[in-house]
Amino acid sequence: MTRPAHVVAVDLGGTTIKAARYGPQGIAEETLRIPTPSSKGQDAVVAAVVQAATALVGPGVRAVGLCAPGLIDTETGVIHYAANLGLRDAPLAAAVADAVGLPVTLQHDVRAACMAERQLGLGTDVSDLLVVVLGTGLAAGIISDGRPIRGGTGIAGEFGHIPVHADGERCSCSQHGCVEAYAGGQAMIRRYRRTGKSAETAADIIARLGTDADADRIWSEATDALGRALVTSTLLLDHQRIVLAGGVTAAGTRLTVPVRHSLQRGLAWRTAPTVEISPLGAGAGLLGAALYAVTATGPAPAPLN
Amino acid sequence: MTRPAHVVAVDLGGTTIKAARYGPQGIAEETLRIPTPSSKGQDAVVAAVVQAATALVGPGVRAVGLCAPGLIDTETGVIHYAANLGLRDAPLAAAVADAVGLPVTLQHDVRAACMAERQLGLGTDVSDLLVVVLGTGLAAGIISDGRPIRGGTGIAGEFGHIPVHADGERCSCSQHGCVEAYAGGQAMIRRYRRTGKSAETAADIIARLGTDADADRIWSEATDALGRALVTSTLLLDHQRIVLAGGVTAAGTRLTVPVRHSLQRGLAWRTAPTVEISPLGAGAGLLGAALYAVTATGPAPAPLN
Repeated sequence: MTRPAHVVAVDLGGTTIKAARYGPQGIAEETLRIPTPSSKGQDAVVAAVVQAATALVGPGVRAVGLCAPGLIDTETGVIHYAANLGLRDAPLAAAVADAVGLPVTLQHDVRAACMAERQLGLGTDVSDLLVVVLGTGLAAGIISDGRPIRGGTGIAGEFGHIPVHADGERCSCSQHGCVEAYAGGQAMIRRYRRTGKSAETAADIIARLGTDADADRIWSEATDALGRALVTSTLLLDHQRIVLAGGVTAAGTRLTVPVRHSLQRGLAWRTAPTVEISPLGAGAGLLGAALYAVTATGPAPAPLN
Repeated sequence: MTRPAHVVAVDLGGTTIKAARYGPQGIAEETLRIPTPSSKGQDAVVAAVVQAATALVGPGVRAVGLCAPGLIDTETGVIHYAANLGLRDAPLAAAVADAVGLPVTLQHDVRAACMAERQLGLGTDVSDLLVVVLGTGLAAGIISDGRPIRGGTGIAGEFGHIPVHADGERCSCSQHGCVEAYAGGQAMIRRYRRTGKSAETAADIIARLGTDADADRIWSEATDALGRALVTSTLLLDHQRIVLAGGVTAAGTRLTVPVRHSLQRGLAWRTAPTVEISPLGAGAGLLGAALYAVTATGPAPAPLN
């Protein structure tokens, strides 16, 4: 098991930049959160990440690990495209490296979360793991035979646009019937509002389960769609375990029970992989970014104790 | 590039056992075909494979590579389950090794075909490849970052049962809407016969394209379903190239043109991988079995010339 020792990690999200410095035992010694200045343009976003990293780097820190959404080139440390952040060809790793004078890695946030799950969460005892992060959209990290799947152009794991209903609900991607058009947070809110009622977040819908038939129907269609997409992923990749992450997992068994049912129903002739909720919470991406930085710079020296 | 030199390969199929001995240049020197005695029980099937291997092993042969459909344990060389062959826990590799006194490997036939494509077909210049074998059923071999995907229990690539139409056509697996229920050879024949007309093979349907509206519709639904399943696979695994193999590929551009169209339509925001027909024909499994045997026993000595 790798521990995130002696590194700083920064998780660049659509609304918040989270950062942490991990000490010799791999425990976060200091953390910070700042708003992402995504409306102020690319330079402001890059500068905010540099600021967060610089604020935490100190004596003993050996490397910095970054993670972000979008189309990432891990070799060059460039974010080629991140719609929610307004970034195009942003050389994020180089900007941070120039400021702190340390090795800097950049990883896709969902793949970082998947690595954290593999090293420190529910993936430590399996070689074939799927981690699906349920948020506004849906994305997945895949570990096959112990190795993360990148894909030919680095964008494997685009789970959200798996088609589950031919000619179904319209998705933000302009196509129809994507799993995200049913199980994405934004989609659930949009579908619920069509009934004439109000909801600000997916949590509002979850809170009404059992007492509001519209909430029940939308949630049932969401978990069914998610189960169908997991069927396909299992058929192709033969996962041993599926871990669900992201805010919606606060629903607990109201999420896992129907998803497991939908998954097993679509895998009549084989045993379904287990479906669990990540124990790592919202910090999984940050932890994974730290782990990638450690992996890139070799094992940490033994703690002095 | 690996060449299948100095090995014998045997491809155990549902109706035919094919075998070949490959010489120093990796060229097949001698081949044989015998019917698979699948109605005569497990011992008869194993004995027929042993007979085929023994007939071709001669001086200079260093190893034997086997391939077969079903649930294969490549470590132990056992076929745990192969419905069409009537096999359960058949120790095929050990039986052949006992008879010929050489190292013997056993590989899944579709993964063997995928390896042949990777080494000697259309996959030599890519790291992320999907090979879909279109037959009675549909199965896929996946290469990701240059490595074959096995899955947690060794059954990755179950492409045929990807759901493409919720509550759609009933499949042989007892579920509904699987891609195989539209694009599998047996399914196409069954769907065509429902119109009251006769067809013995998928080729009969293909031959009537352009002159028979029922053939056109069934073919269109088949290629559309195949395209939809390829969308999902591309989203998850980000293939650089998709290679179609199996008898139905004789349809040529009548297959590739609509499949490419369906694939691109489902990948609106990204470039679709290229879709090509395998140049290796029905011998791809045999060739791949030979390649796995070579890989397991190290490179061949240089030919003397």
